[in-house]
Amino acid sequence: MTAYDIIEAKKHGKTLSKAQIDAFVRMVADETASDAQIAAFCMAVCIRGMTDEEAVFLTQAMADSGERLSPPADGIFADKHSTGGVSDSTTLVLVPVLASLGVKCAKYSGRGLGHTGGTLDKLESFAGFNVNLTAQQFSSQVERIGAAIAGQTKTTVPADKRMYAVRDVTATVDSIPLIASSVMSKKLASFAQVILLDVKYGDGAFMKTARAAEQLARLMVAAGTAAGRQVEAAVTDMSAPLGDAIGCNAEVREVIEVLRGKRNNLSRLSLLHCERILRMAQGTEEKRAKTLVQEAIDSGAALEKFRQIVSAQGGDTAAFDDAEALPLAPERVILRAPGAGKLHIHAQALGKACAQLGGGRQREGEDIDHTVGILLKRRAGDSVAQGEEVAEVFCRERRQEALDLAQSAFEVRHSYRARPLVHCIISKEDISDVRYQKKDNG
Amino acid sequence: MTAYDIIEAKKHGKTLSKAQIDAFVRMVADETASDAQIAAFCMAVCIRGMTDEEAVFLTQAMADSGERLSPPADGIFADKHSTGGVSDSTTLVLVPVLASLGVKCAKYSGRGLGHTGGTLDKLESFAGFNVNLTAQQFSSQVERIGAAIAGQTKTTVPADKRMYAVRDVTATVDSIPLIASSVMSKKLASFAQVILLDVKYGDGAFMKTARAAEQLARLMVAAGTAAGRQVEAAVTDMSAPLGDAIGCNAEVREVIEVLRGKRNNLSRLSLLHCERILRMAQGTEEKRAKTLVQEAIDSGAALEKFRQIVSAQGGDTAAFDDAEALPLAPERVILRAPGAGKLHIHAQALGKACAQLGGGRQREGEDIDHTVGILLKRRAGDSVAQGEEVAEVFCRERRQEALDLAQSAFEVRHSYRARPLVHCIISKEDISDVRYQKKDNG
Repeated sequence: MTAYDIIEAKKHGKTLSKAQIDAFVRMVADETASDAQIAAFCMAVCIRGMTDEEAVFLTQAMADSGERLSPPADGIFADKHSTGGVSDSTTLVLVPVLASLGVKCAKYSGRGLGHTGGTLDKLESFAGFNVNLTAQQFSSQVERIGAAIAGQTKTTVPADKRMYAVRDVTATVDSIPLIASSVMSKKLASFAQVILLDVKYGDGAFMKTARAAEQLARLMVAAGTAAGRQVEAAVTDMSAPLGDAIGCNAEVREVIEVLRGKRNNLSRLSLLHCERILRMAQGTEEKRAKTLVQEAIDSGAALEKFRQIVSAQGGDTAAFDDAEALPLAPERVILRAPGAGKLHIHAQALGKACAQLGGGRQREGEDIDHTVGILLKRRAGDSVAQGEEVAEVFCRERRQEALDLAQSAFEVRHSYRARPLVHCIISKEDISDVRYQKKDNG
Repeated sequence: MTAYDIIEAKKHGKTLSKAQIDAFVRMVADETASDAQIAAFCMAVCIRGMTDEEAVFLTQAMADSGERLSPPADGIFADKHSTGGVSDSTTLVLVPVLASLGVKCAKYSGRGLGHTGGTLDKLESFAGFNVNLTAQQFSSQVERIGAAIAGQTKTTVPADKRMYAVRDVTATVDSIPLIASSVMSKKLASFAQVILLDVKYGDGAFMKTARAAEQLARLMVAAGTAAGRQVEAAVTDMSAPLGDAIGCNAEVREVIEVLRGKRNNLSRLSLLHCERILRMAQGTEEKRAKTLVQEAIDSGAALEKFRQIVSAQGGDTAAFDDAEALPLAPERVILRAPGAGKLHIHAQALGKACAQLGGGRQREGEDIDHTVGILLKRRAGDSVAQGEEVAEVFCRERRQEALDLAQSAFEVRHSYRARPLVHCIISKEDISDVRYQKKDNG
């Protein structure tokens, strides 16, 4: 069985067997397959698609392609993954809340590309914060305080690393089976027993429609369930920014406000995620979970846990006492409502504008300016008067193109139809139509 | 315009503009595009296809990707290209016949892969034959004796070289627009005004059906015509081997026999090609062309011209006086009819068997054993008795697998329906349905 034969079969739209998928992924991991062969395979998958079963096999083969992480302590670990949105700092709210309630979070996160920073970038807003923990440091911190957040090591899921690098330059990113296997292979190579997936859809998300997001969610839940994990996916709205802040320092300031009780869509969604994870991890009953999560906020326990995590990883905790310890860039530009009516805010334009101003990465490996940011003064759906201040941009340089892009994110119309924050929840009961044979999945 | 955007457009089945195709080919040639990007592009073309116009643009962009060869002398030059078959030595018959009739042949040829050797490999059967002529040697030989046959230099059509190397390992070879542009870009980068294409179909050919071969032929004629060349394509049968010999020395021996007057499908097809080229190059009337070509054989002028070419390029001409100067390998295996009836001979099995015995390349760069070969004692359609000798295999080692494959090429059935040797001729009058805009083609 050669890489050539497997590519050829997929080119003709054939369904690949588990043996063929295993063999191809092995050749990707051990570098027998060339980048060109990976690209041809991914393009054939993009155009011809994969059955649900093939996608589950691909996920498992990729998860098995490298070192499996071992749990840093006894017990059940929780993980959460978002497919990415604008002003989405739910991880930074959720980890302290859960850890304060005794759910262990050994969280591997990534850096951002395209919009604003990723979770690791945001944590580095705290001066001195170390995201590169050794396995020993990581384990002992989880044992001591119930949570750690760090970057994943290079030896985990090498097949995904190679495939992702190739997909990124060959226009083969937007394939649901390839996205599902990339995300879930990393989750399965780790040890979390309880996994909550947040699959975003809408203007600011990778999936533009609820239907595509649901499809991706079902496939990921199926792959996780097949591997014996407890997985649920929330399909959530990403038409407008989730919180009121965009940019690393601005978002971390907002996380602290949310842990102090501020209420907006960011806090609502983070706490809903916490409730679902509590119910999965500890079998907590619905109403009780809601109460516990709210108490973690109200008592200050979650905020204290966040301070503990930052401190344990070497970060400066001054911002917990004075927001100005996380400064915003000196140039200020006020954005105003272009008319009178209901405000619409396009998340993608704001995310891209922030990146263009230096607050996010446009290419891998670029530095991020943590002080660049955008603060929303009004929210999507608010009634506004013409010329009213709707947002403030903080930057080093007034790059007109980026500022015009940010301004274009604000539209005023006669009406605003709010979408529900959570479109639906996909759990293992909802994937009976996802065809895969559990018996073959090891 | 980035490689990414162009790949993405083709992934979605969009028709690419001339500007997009030109840009992509430029990035292939100057190595801005990676192998992975080339692979993704070729896979998208394989699955989504190309319009005729896109294929013509691709051909021209590739032809323009490197150095254009300049004509070695004044006058009109003829070229001929076969898409490849088993026992297909038409070039070696055709070049001497045409050169003896005053049609200049400055022929660039290739090496073989898969079946038996290519034209250059066969010429190297003459000890000392030099296929690596300098531009100066090549020109002066064409001026002096009207013909030279050599390998193409590395700087010609670099985009095709890269694309072909990638296609070869990514299962993206069998795309009609990619094949047409690969073949025709090399023809257009050269200077031949008159081009005859031999597009084979059937068991021993790359195109399995007459319909696919016709499609390829029309596209190549369109691309050549758009560039202002005189092009015709013959769609010809390659179900059984063309001549009676397979393997380098055996085929060269047969070429000498054909130039001495032997008649079989190899001689018939070679002389038909010569007639069509004479008519295109010199406007010779049909009946007159037939007479001239036959006279070139009957008078010995063509054989003498072949000897002259071999001698001019440093080859030993002893084989013109004694066939044994081109020896056949010492191990002899007789293949016999598996029953009584009409003989069917499957070309592909014989070609592959010869390659497996060392008479062809299975991987690029391998050495070829010129003495390995198969001589047919009976032809397709002949009535045979069970156990009658149908072929003799000449090898160094009796590799059973290869010998079994060779034996499997011979089948006996109740009847034999001969296909016409030439299925059809495609000339510029036949391509009115091939949609391309001549005005845009430079």
